[in-house]
Amino acid sequence: MRWWGWGDPDRASSLPEPAAALLREEVGMGEGQRGPVALEEVKLPPSGLRPRAQRALEAAVGPGRVVGDHAVRVLHAAGKGYPDLVRLRAGTPDAAPDAVVFPESDEQVGALVRSCGREGVAVVPFGGGTSVVGGVAPVRGRHHAVIALDLRDLRGLGGIDRESLTVLAGAGTRGPALEAELAGHGLTLGHFPQSFEYVTIGGCAATRSAGQASTGYGRIDDLVTGLRLRAPAGELALAALPASGAGPSIRELVVGSEGAFGVITELALRVRPRPEATAYEGMFFETFEAGTQALRLVAQERRAPDIARLSDEEETRLSLALAGDGGIKGLAGRGYIRARGYAGGCLAILGWEGEAEDVGRRRTDSLTLLRRAGGLPLGAAPGRAWAAGRFGAPYLRDDLLDRGVMVETVETAGQWSALPGLREAITAALDETLAARGTPPVVLCHISHLYESGASLYFTFVARQEEGREIDQWWAAKSAAAEAIVAGGGTITHHHGIGRDHASWLGQEVGGLGVDVLRSVKSRLDPAGVMNPGKLLA
Amino acid sequence: MRWWGWGDPDRASSLPEPAAALLREEVGMGEGQRGPVALEEVKLPPSGLRPRAQRALEAAVGPGRVVGDHAVRVLHAAGKGYPDLVRLRAGTPDAAPDAVVFPESDEQVGALVRSCGREGVAVVPFGGGTSVVGGVAPVRGRHHAVIALDLRDLRGLGGIDRESLTVLAGAGTRGPALEAELAGHGLTLGHFPQSFEYVTIGGCAATRSAGQASTGYGRIDDLVTGLRLRAPAGELALAALPASGAGPSIRELVVGSEGAFGVITELALRVRPRPEATAYEGMFFETFEAGTQALRLVAQERRAPDIARLSDEEETRLSLALAGDGGIKGLAGRGYIRARGYAGGCLAILGWEGEAEDVGRRRTDSLTLLRRAGGLPLGAAPGRAWAAGRFGAPYLRDDLLDRGVMVETVETAGQWSALPGLREAITAALDETLAARGTPPVVLCHISHLYESGASLYFTFVARQEEGREIDQWWAAKSAAAEAIVAGGGTITHHHGIGRDHASWLGQEVGGLGVDVLRSVKSRLDPAGVMNPGKLLA
Repeated sequence: MRWWGWGDPDRASSLPEPAAALLREEVGMGEGQRGPVALEEVKLPPSGLRPRAQRALEAAVGPGRVVGDHAVRVLHAAGKGYPDLVRLRAGTPDAAPDAVVFPESDEQVGALVRSCGREGVAVVPFGGGTSVVGGVAPVRGRHHAVIALDLRDLRGLGGIDRESLTVLAGAGTRGPALEAELAGHGLTLGHFPQSFEYVTIGGCAATRSAGQASTGYGRIDDLVTGLRLRAPAGELALAALPASGAGPSIRELVVGSEGAFGVITELALRVRPRPEATAYEGMFFETFEAGTQALRLVAQERRAPDIARLSDEEETRLSLALAGDGGIKGLAGRGYIRARGYAGGCLAILGWEGEAEDVGRRRTDSLTLLRRAGGLPLGAAPGRAWAAGRFGAPYLRDDLLDRGVMVETVETAGQWSALPGLREAITAALDETLAARGTPPVVLCHISHLYESGASLYFTFVARQEEGREIDQWWAAKSAAAEAIVAGGGTITHHHGIGRDHASWLGQEVGGLGVDVLRSVKSRLDPAGVMNPGKLLA
Repeated sequence: MRWWGWGDPDRASSLPEPAAALLREEVGMGEGQRGPVALEEVKLPPSGLRPRAQRALEAAVGPGRVVGDHAVRVLHAAGKGYPDLVRLRAGTPDAAPDAVVFPESDEQVGALVRSCGREGVAVVPFGGGTSVVGGVAPVRGRHHAVIALDLRDLRGLGGIDRESLTVLAGAGTRGPALEAELAGHGLTLGHFPQSFEYVTIGGCAATRSAGQASTGYGRIDDLVTGLRLRAPAGELALAALPASGAGPSIRELVVGSEGAFGVITELALRVRPRPEATAYEGMFFETFEAGTQALRLVAQERRAPDIARLSDEEETRLSLALAGDGGIKGLAGRGYIRARGYAGGCLAILGWEGEAEDVGRRRTDSLTLLRRAGGLPLGAAPGRAWAAGRFGAPYLRDDLLDRGVMVETVETAGQWSALPGLREAITAALDETLAARGTPPVVLCHISHLYESGASLYFTFVARQEEGREIDQWWAAKSAAAEAIVAGGGTITHHHGIGRDHASWLGQEVGGLGVDVLRSVKSRLDPAGVMNPGKLLA
């Protein structure tokens, strides 16, 4: 992973020229190139780790596993949110871990967090480092030092129970490695967040993530059936169970705990047979509202595709431009659509995965309903284009930052009846806030996860950067959107998590007493308050 | 509800003579009749409520709503577990509430629990009073008095959101009233525990219940999308959301909290259109193992019926006897089955609910797989017999108690791979424990809730009572079964809850630290420890 942006440096994406032209036109993107500083120019504070604490960490994991060199500290200095990248590219991260520690076992994690509790060293659990909400920011809190606890060596699959379709996975197992190991057993987890290539499964559980196919496979909270948490106060081990009536769900208290209670070291996961067939297709709807109603219908009739994503008019327009010769433009599609009177309109991507016969049947079931609700099938080409680029958006962001353009996302979920109001209010908040600063944005929206009672809304906004005031500009937009979300009855986050950036809105969602309940849990598991300070609980 | 047993006194059931003959033969049931004492003979301790506390309660709810008469205290002196009924019938309940309070609003509940916290009065939230695990036992704990807080007047439906298919319901709304109100809007919740006729929806949520159709509609934890809890320390209000990534789930912490954190006063519930068609049918499997594998297959292929219940050989044999002329005996079935070589074998009940076309389609999908896995369809007659008696078992228990027979149930859930071992160990534990006491039991088992990774096991055991030592006898069997459950990797309860009877095993399921985490939540919400002492947390 490149330290100042996303992904493998050899796999850089650059904006297709038609998209660049569009952004020059619509958000006033300039011609300048603003690349990142060199790695050695990144300014880090000197490590504040006291020798005694250093020795305690080394005693827990072995001396070679406590690392303090510049490159490693930079790589663990931030996540991959917009403000993280702005600061990193400028060579001025807010902070950096005083050391990065690489335990190689669950027991070492246990020893490490106990030591940190005793020595007053803050601990930031670090999986893929892909947080976009400040979830891995190296915050010391009231402690003298902070370490990043990198879980990469707690990886691999075990406990494969073919009959029950469950496995155990080390928390540091990355998405592709997990799927590759599962594939060797003819299995899949089916959890594909956009950050799939870099996430760890422990990070997914800690942040209560959802993936592109979660409408079909379920969110991570549906897939985790057991877990192990190492907290400074001890260990929580919950064996895999299909369901239980045994009191409040401690599993659901650890899922989403974002490293603030302890470190998830192992997960029991529900898996499925690897799909022998997949079908990804496009469908057009005349309006976002018509598409939304159609998706509501398939969700409530329980005939939803496994993947269901509906772009609004703006996102559809921009994706067509971005797709260049691929996607919908390359196929007879656009003429076809125009011939039927869909000017503008909204693109949906629908996907089914499973046994060939099952995919055929469920596809017919979904499409029958969706067509009846006004959807115009576009065939497989848009689905292929989506599948080819499904993990690609973060790569484009680097090119936009090079060109002085801010791109950021906000997301929520709400009841179906609340979605139109939420969409309008959030779009207006972003439009007005950024227009007032002289940087009017393009705001795109899509639905990407369906539930019987509601769905998620995902917004991407793009605007010219205010040079030198990038962070203020971002925070103004971000916080205006967050206010609109909570006022409109949405959740402050459907799948990005709370981290640092959403922490001040959690109380509006769960109440002051709800936040206090979480604090009481934290106090029990992490009495010294060393676990991921400043995240989850403001 | 009769104070010493189950249900409407006018609806008593008595054991069909063939079943009685079978029990005389198999467990040595005698001929004697041991009826309950008269209501006025039930011995209650005098009310210990201090005048100052009495005034505080009256200030919270109004004087007419604090009731202390004998009949009302007896009705709130226990739940409906086997030991509860043994003690009540003998006129010697362990304890009784010092008063029963009937608040009529959410605000009154808030005022009441705050008062109780200040005055040191323990509070037992009381819905339908149907707990079979001591969940409503009037335990004072370290306090001078205990009240039952009867929620019957917090009833009714509101906030009907047809687009999102969600409603709000007062916690005291009983099952039949809720379904009747929903029916007026063409909706259903689909939550039908065996105790459906008496449960309140708040009680279902507080005890994390599952119903007979939960394989299709989902457990109560899937159906609750928002809630309101009144705790001594304040109010937790969570608006209805389809999903959220905002940290640990506080909703899942309140669901299952069994009154130990506060009182659930209102729920947001996911509902579905009222089914226009239902199909309930029987199927025979040669062995319990074959039937289990077939149910695993439909669950993992996601073609499960909405209701799926598989009795083992013993339960099948006894149900056929109990059914008398109804059920499978009345139809050509038995000959038909014998002709095909199924001697012994296991009866499954399968059910589908929904739009007529959908029921037809899904029924075909399930049956195709189940037949392929060895199931022999028996048509609608066994389904009709099941539906007619689906809430009937607790009525029969009273007749058995009259005849000096203990009947009790234990239940668990585990991974598919763990089920055979669990069934064997639990059956052996019950058999051996009761045989050693000279009262060898009949032990019946069924699967009744399917998940992709596992299922529930539900055991009914019947044995001659040890007269004068009924409670010792029961506890010996109960605790032997509980030990076998936790040793075999099952949950200590799939849907009965923890209450008082399972509290000492919770720590084996979630660990000592897990229990401490729940204690820390309780301390924050209920600092004086007045909420349902002795339940959930031993």
